[in-house]
Amino acid sequence: MLARGRGVTVWRQIAETIEAEIAGGGLTPGTRLPTEAALTERFGVNRHTVRQAIKSLVDKGLVRVTQGSGTYVEAKPLSYPIGRRTRFSEIVVGQARDPAGKLLGFREMGASVEIAEALDLSPEDPVVMVESAHFADGVPISWAVTAFPLPRFAEVPQVYGATGSITAALAACGVPDYRRATTRIGASVADAVDAKRLEIAEGRPVLVIDSVNVDPEGVPIQWARSHFCADRVRLTVGG
Amino acid sequence: MLARGRGVTVWRQIAETIEAEIAGGGLTPGTRLPTEAALTERFGVNRHTVRQAIKSLVDKGLVRVTQGSGTYVEAKPLSYPIGRRTRFSEIVVGQARDPAGKLLGFREMGASVEIAEALDLSPEDPVVMVESAHFADGVPISWAVTAFPLPRFAEVPQVYGATGSITAALAACGVPDYRRATTRIGASVADAVDAKRLEIAEGRPVLVIDSVNVDPEGVPIQWARSHFCADRVRLTVGG
Repeated sequence: MLARGRGVTVWRQIAETIEAEIAGGGLTPGTRLPTEAALTERFGVNRHTVRQAIKSLVDKGLVRVTQGSGTYVEAKPLSYPIGRRTRFSEIVVGQARDPAGKLLGFREMGASVEIAEALDLSPEDPVVMVESAHFADGVPISWAVTAFPLPRFAEVPQVYGATGSITAALAACGVPDYRRATTRIGASVADAVDAKRLEIAEGRPVLVIDSVNVDPEGVPIQWARSHFCADRVRLTVGG
Repeated sequence: MLARGRGVTVWRQIAETIEAEIAGGGLTPGTRLPTEAALTERFGVNRHTVRQAIKSLVDKGLVRVTQGSGTYVEAKPLSYPIGRRTRFSEIVVGQARDPAGKLLGFREMGASVEIAEALDLSPEDPVVMVESAHFADGVPISWAVTAFPLPRFAEVPQVYGATGSITAALAACGVPDYRRATTRIGASVADAVDAKRLEIAEGRPVLVIDSVNVDPEGVPIQWARSHFCADRVRLTVGG
């Protein structure tokens, strides 16, 4: 099966073989790859070669290594439209995946200069900061720090914690609809916090998105800084 | 100046000192930092500590290390609006910087399946692939691979090579105006090619943007995959 001497390194041939199995549907998203030992035996190579092949698949975003659990085939990247109406749950459901939102924590504090400016507040005006993680079919897609003005949105953490839906939390505070006013997109490499929350290795690419949502009257109601696993999402604008 | 034992590691104090000098305007964008030896002497620490401080500034996107030349203060990230009218030169000029485009190479070939789909062609229809690099004040911002249908855009490489302007090259081919139809944004970490062309270290974050431009009649005229140095740009949508 492996052609030593055909000018392609052995680890690359193994990676190409597994990549073809993923592309062909033999290995479907969420499938656990055989263990390192099993791959070592299957291809008749040493562990080092298998590790190099797996690393190249991780670098291409085709598989993910979950600490202590194994290596899994990644789903195709989620198409994530950035527009006036950007809702995590709707986007995930629209691509036939199961969305979930998880409250990681919250606290009330004075707005930073940056958040005050985004929300049309004065610095130190009270806001509630909410940390949350967002999943599609149980796989982490993003985590976010979000700020809401107080006292208007005091109920957000509780309702979000119960429903996992920002839309539901805002509705409970009397905002039946909202739209995206501004979006600012950068990228970084995963630090220890990103790595843990997104279940990726440190150093993998992360899309960092700052956004402001406004209510139907145009009043800013939500500032967020979201960290998306770049291997699992493509942002789309227009089209 | 450095407070050993105040609970902050020495390298972090050095990084904070330099960061404050950048924020305060004492070190302006494009300034070369003192050499490692000079910083070692100034702060009374060893080279290892200075290197750690510099690395943390690189990780924050505040300075860049240019191979064999030194460490320079980065400019503030360029705000790069993604919309129907996205023109590199206009964006850079609008932020009081000097834009430049450089032709890296070109060749005629058959369109890949992906490019054919984007340009409404059949696979293997002839296109000209252009590689280019884009600068603001002489600092690399992005590099791109761009495809134009043939024979309509046969003159693009020559005019782009002479002017550094895609807008001028399209005008020479009878397209006086164009607009962005679709944009797809992902992120990766710099490989050797990105590192060389963007003058960044391998592993730094890169924004990867696939886009399609259309002429005034809505006919696709240009597909591009652009690699932006994420430390030097923030993409904006709306607002």
